[in-house]
Amino acid sequence: MNMRDNKAEKIGIIMNGVTGRMGTNQHLMRSIVSIIQQGGVEVSPGRRVVPDPILVGRNADKIKELAYRSGIDKYTTELEYALERKDMKIYFDAQTTGRRAPSICAAVEAGKDIYCEKPCATDTRTALDLYRLCVDKGVKNGVVQDKLWLPGLLKIKRLMERQFFGRILSVRGEFGYWVFEGDSVPAQRPSWNYRKEDDGGIIIDMLCHWRYVLDHLFGKVKSVSCVGATHIQERVDESGAGYKCTADDAAYAQFELEGGIFVNLNSSWCTRVRRDDLLTLHIDGTHGSAVAGLREVYTQAYGNTPKPVWNPDIPQPVNFYEGWSRMPEQEHFENAFKVQWELFIQHVVTGSPFPWDLLEGAKGIQLAEKGLESWARRCWVDIPELQP
Amino acid sequence: MNMRDNKAEKIGIIMNGVTGRMGTNQHLMRSIVSIIQQGGVEVSPGRRVVPDPILVGRNADKIKELAYRSGIDKYTTELEYALERKDMKIYFDAQTTGRRAPSICAAVEAGKDIYCEKPCATDTRTALDLYRLCVDKGVKNGVVQDKLWLPGLLKIKRLMERQFFGRILSVRGEFGYWVFEGDSVPAQRPSWNYRKEDDGGIIIDMLCHWRYVLDHLFGKVKSVSCVGATHIQERVDESGAGYKCTADDAAYAQFELEGGIFVNLNSSWCTRVRRDDLLTLHIDGTHGSAVAGLREVYTQAYGNTPKPVWNPDIPQPVNFYEGWSRMPEQEHFENAFKVQWELFIQHVVTGSPFPWDLLEGAKGIQLAEKGLESWARRCWVDIPELQP
Amino acid sequence: MNMRDNKAEKIGIIMNGVTGRMGTNQHLMRSIVSIIQQGGVEVSPGRRVVPDPILVGRNADKIKELAYRSGIDKYTTELEYALERKDMKIYFDAQTTGRRAPSICAAVEAGKDIYCEKPCATDTRTALDLYRLCVDKGVKNGVVQDKLWLPGLLKIKRLMERQFFGRILSVRGEFGYWVFEGDSVPAQRPSWNYRKEDDGGIIIDMLCHWRYVLDHLFGKVKSVSCVGATHIQERVDESGAGYKCTADDAAYAQFELEGGIFVNLNSSWCTRVRRDDLLTLHIDGTHGSAVAGLREVYTQAYGNTPKPVWNPDIPQPVNFYEGWSRMPEQEHFENAFKVQWELFIQHVVTGSPFPWDLLEGAKGIQLAEKGLESWARRCWVDIPELQP
Amino acid sequence: MNMRDNKAEKIGIIMNGVTGRMGTNQHLMRSIVSIIQQGGVEVSPGRRVVPDPILVGRNADKIKELAYRSGIDKYTTELEYALERKDMKIYFDAQTTGRRAPSICAAVEAGKDIYCEKPCATDTRTALDLYRLCVDKGVKNGVVQDKLWLPGLLKIKRLMERQFFGRILSVRGEFGYWVFEGDSVPAQRPSWNYRKEDDGGIIIDMLCHWRYVLDHLFGKVKSVSCVGATHIQERVDESGAGYKCTADDAAYAQFELEGGIFVNLNSSWCTRVRRDDLLTLHIDGTHGSAVAGLREVYTQAYGNTPKPVWNPDIPQPVNFYEGWSRMPEQEHFENAFKVQWELFIQHVVTGSPFPWDLLEGAKGIQLAEKGLESWARRCWVDIPELQP
Repeated sequence: MNMRDNKAEKIGIIMNGVTGRMGTNQHLMRSIVSIIQQGGVEVSPGRRVVPDPILVGRNADKIKELAYRSGIDKYTTELEYALERKDMKIYFDAQTTGRRAPSICAAVEAGKDIYCEKPCATDTRTALDLYRLCVDKGVKNGVVQDKLWLPGLLKIKRLMERQFFGRILSVRGEFGYWVFEGDSVPAQRPSWNYRKEDDGGIIIDMLCHWRYVLDHLFGKVKSVSCVGATHIQERVDESGAGYKCTADDAAYAQFELEGGIFVNLNSSWCTRVRRDDLLTLHIDGTHGSAVAGLREVYTQAYGNTPKPVWNPDIPQPVNFYEGWSRMPEQEHFENAFKVQWELFIQHVVTGSPFPWDLLEGAKGIQLAEKGLESWARRCWVDIPELQP
Repeated sequence: MNMRDNKAEKIGIIMNGVTGRMGTNQHLMRSIVSIIQQGGVEVSPGRRVVPDPILVGRNADKIKELAYRSGIDKYTTELEYALERKDMKIYFDAQTTGRRAPSICAAVEAGKDIYCEKPCATDTRTALDLYRLCVDKGVKNGVVQDKLWLPGLLKIKRLMERQFFGRILSVRGEFGYWVFEGDSVPAQRPSWNYRKEDDGGIIIDMLCHWRYVLDHLFGKVKSVSCVGATHIQERVDESGAGYKCTADDAAYAQFELEGGIFVNLNSSWCTRVRRDDLLTLHIDGTHGSAVAGLREVYTQAYGNTPKPVWNPDIPQPVNFYEGWSRMPEQEHFENAFKVQWELFIQHVVTGSPFPWDLLEGAKGIQLAEKGLESWARRCWVDIPELQP
Repeated sequence: MNMRDNKAEKIGIIMNGVTGRMGTNQHLMRSIVSIIQQGGVEVSPGRRVVPDPILVGRNADKIKELAYRSGIDKYTTELEYALERKDMKIYFDAQTTGRRAPSICAAVEAGKDIYCEKPCATDTRTALDLYRLCVDKGVKNGVVQDKLWLPGLLKIKRLMERQFFGRILSVRGEFGYWVFEGDSVPAQRPSWNYRKEDDGGIIIDMLCHWRYVLDHLFGKVKSVSCVGATHIQERVDESGAGYKCTADDAAYAQFELEGGIFVNLNSSWCTRVRRDDLLTLHIDGTHGSAVAGLREVYTQAYGNTPKPVWNPDIPQPVNFYEGWSRMPEQEHFENAFKVQWELFIQHVVTGSPFPWDLLEGAKGIQLAEKGLESWARRCWVDIPELQP
Repeated sequence: MNMRDNKAEKIGIIMNGVTGRMGTNQHLMRSIVSIIQQGGVEVSPGRRVVPDPILVGRNADKIKELAYRSGIDKYTTELEYALERKDMKIYFDAQTTGRRAPSICAAVEAGKDIYCEKPCATDTRTALDLYRLCVDKGVKNGVVQDKLWLPGLLKIKRLMERQFFGRILSVRGEFGYWVFEGDSVPAQRPSWNYRKEDDGGIIIDMLCHWRYVLDHLFGKVKSVSCVGATHIQERVDESGAGYKCTADDAAYAQFELEGGIFVNLNSSWCTRVRRDDLLTLHIDGTHGSAVAGLREVYTQAYGNTPKPVWNPDIPQPVNFYEGWSRMPEQEHFENAFKVQWELFIQHVVTGSPFPWDLLEGAKGIQLAEKGLESWARRCWVDIPELQP
């Protein structure tokens, strides 16, 4: 359905900080604009709700241009103005991490339901406070956990539902790719990622993700061992100026999960990819194994497991890629961000379950903090239960 | 020249414990027999020395059959008899680890030069004592470090000699494959590997290797963090009887090297292989990366590094395997065990350098012990310099 | 943003002689029209300048039709009329070489900034005089050096920035393709190219290019050895009439560069192409080699260099194309002519650096003249520094 | 016919200096041994002559081992002994160049017919003197010109016999590959090649070949322009010791032939191969073009010639390799060295024509000398007719 229905029920959404790469592409264009174009979200049988967003940004030119490009007619540089509007029900925040907490507080005070990017704050305590404030004020709340809806991970979930793996023994993950330094080939990530003083660093970025991926897919994270590194020490920023990298650009992390699964997860912006995809999870179980990329999953069941012989004197006679089978498309997968947006809108309108709240967001930050603590102390660190 | 010259100079070698898989295939058939067939080792210009082995084994039938198969005419079940022979210059030991130290001691006392499989003892102290004994008695000594002569690792060395990597940032290694439990498909490894009481376990097995590979190729090992696991708890042995696995069958290890290189090395007998080979080392450097298997190496230089975009909404447009180039055969590579045998024989006859002595062997055991300590204490453990 | 903003700042450009193939396709359609459609050039943060061209041509019908096709509303057959317009800031010349100098002189006298195709004159002295005139009158000036922005050559520059080649030893270039004689298959180049009396000839055409490519990419040209040939002696012109070819249609040139790099560059309109592209540069260095086409570059690093054996008795076992890796797209590349146009417009408006001035253009003509001298004298000729 | 006939007519051949790579592989194993195994040469209908060689070498061990390997029963370290044998009719010389002339003189004095490797002497005067001596003494003589019987060049000859090319316009040749320096990967050529004091250098090596290839295939060489280079200045020799390279390792040569054909021939031991073979000749003619490798030839006739368009804004739409057709095997080609050996034996026995005599050999050295002169004088040098 590609029509816009003038009589359709609308829901006002304040979108703050969506001029960045992720905010624009994933949240605005591929989620909200896409939901508007499809005629909204069917929150209950026959009832459709259409997003009615107002864009908020600090740079007047940029926000105007973004409004033009996205076909959204409402925009402002004044967050207060947006918060005062009674027709705006949801406050969404995709600003840089440091600006998020005060804006969310203001939005809660204004009675808005809260949805925000991860990490929801720069430390666990603040993140917990935000959650408690929402509970006190009775506003609904959620945090982006997009990777749960990656087609590759949904396929893994399907395999687990059918006991494909038997008992899962271990998970090996590799995330990352080469981020150019910017001195010759332009960099493909923003420079703040590489500065600690701007809340950069791959540990804080990725461990927030790993927490909900592991908790929801394989088992609750019990403890973490993590080593960070700043492999590339100088880069060139967006303006062509060199700068010193103060944040970690690689994280070598290990996790122990409830149920005894061991997890090894390397994240790096300084690696060249020789694997199926930018993120791969290799799961070994007693009955079978699978390797998931962003969309594709390859499986090898017990009966397809080769029995190789160690003989370096001859070329390897086994092609180890051939013993795996690609999972076909058994379902249609929507954009991961859009799926979660639809669930949150439904949650706000109908009160349907939405387990990915700010408490869950705080857990992600907690894992990142414990990872940094492990790095500093050079030992395993347990993850205590967060008291809401 | 494939002729056997009766007047050639000979060197007697006591080969103890070569009825096992590795001993028979690698040390006897592909090394000693092959060296005999090629007319010996040219230890200096124009001087060739031909091995003249006597096989020693506890099982009379087995050793007789092996002598027949290999075309060796001398064999015995009595080690003492062999040690008493004056024409036997070298003692080689490939028995199970627990039997090694006493046999080596006896051989040293008999004035033999010592060459042995790794681990040379079950603990660092014993290994060091063996080394000191050899030094005291003035006998030459060496330990097998075959992986140094794997074609894949030699190619990596060539790349390093030409500064292909720029500054090396990190090394990720994956070793292993699925070892069948023996209940349906027969197991492809001996059952003692899975029993601690028989000196089994993958940590002791593999960390001995990683020590010399890392020390000689990338930089001295400064510290280790290691977690073991016994993923499969019951197996079926050679006789068809079930047994409880008491040793670790997976080792998730991390190392810090002098020079700042970070290493992540997973070893597992409980994983299904989706990579180029049974052992792969992925090396990332500022100027280029390489992935080494046992024989083949694939490289990706800076200029060939793709610049991928994270977009899970479409099938991955980049084939990440295509951006890598296979290294061609620029040299001929002999069997790794044979190469080291030839170097040891030359060392014994001419005194040429042979840096892979029992002290180096002790270092491997030390790393394994420190890895086990790290696992027990759940923290990083530093590796002190061994005092010879 | 693809909108045309009526209030945008404009810059008048007289485009003289763009009815020819290159002028129409590259300068008008793919550069100026494309820049207008994208909303102009951002000459400084937030400031956009939009070209406002007037087309000048001698044939009234042709120029009118071109204006219609390109959507440009201003055109004339009177250069003087265009030069008198105060709103026209830039004079661009793509006429045949012989007409260029007098028109440029008139434009300089009218105070216009000058941009022109290469060769900017028919001889070095005239070209130098044009440059000096511009300097005297204080007008900005530039000459087209499009090949510097070919994606293939930009990729070579990236490789050099990362020291991929080690020390560069030699460059082998092949330019050309078969230009049909026109007697059966119609010719794909204009007939004046093959007549000396019309300033034709491949030496004057291509050595102008090679000068700036070599100077800016590999090292200043120190000396030249060049042999020309008129391989095809009769052709058929645009009207179907046969004519005698008086200009060279192939140039076999060698260059020595500062720094010791040797260059062999063959240009020919009488060759059939068995290589990657119409222009290929093969660069050999101590650490690696690359072959650049117009867009694609293939690399072979030291570690990927095959070690072939000369054995003509068997089919060549090495596929010499397989040992090379295609460079991926690490950057987006615009049309080379458009990139230089944008830089020139920015230079005119803001005074930003533009090193490709008429003095550089004169150097190209100088190299062509020295090439012709080398051919006549059958010896190497040194290239003296041009005194501006 | 693989039998050895005891009653067959035999011809004694003194083979001096065949312990080197080329001597052993090409002249001994693939030529003489192969001719013996096939039952000799049929010099006239029904008359077969079988080579009966004696090997001569300075190193007793090496020559003994070579005799063993090749199954030849006669060998000696005394050339005089061999020359005194009346049953030895032919003297063949494959020693290093400097030793050749005195040995040949001795052989002529002993009345032997002479066959030798190229270059037959270190300078033209000596080479001419050798030729004159043979004429004076009435002995037959010949020089190796193997490339004339390369399958690839024989196919080019076939194309020319059928006027495939129309009028030939130009020939572009590329010879060479990367010769490893020996510091990491072992070198694949002998170190004397890189020392002028040992008669090394690629100009003297290759221009000897180009002379007879050009003279016999395309037209007599009228003049030469040549530039040499020592691209790699230090290498490591067979014993592992570094040495300074004093000879040229690349030659960039141009030739003018009778009939107006222009030839550009690059020879280099410092290039990485991106072409069909180690030697390629690209011949362009008015009616068609061909590219010859050692064995394969690809052709493109007029009607298959593509008409490409210069547009660097899009990926090259033409695959320039696809427009060429591989020539099929219309004939069986023997080893080039063996073919010439059979012709020389026939010449000695029956007096059949053998135009590749020592005068022709002298011409090759002449061209190399003129090439070196051109390099020194930085100009084209004419090639005068050699007076026999």
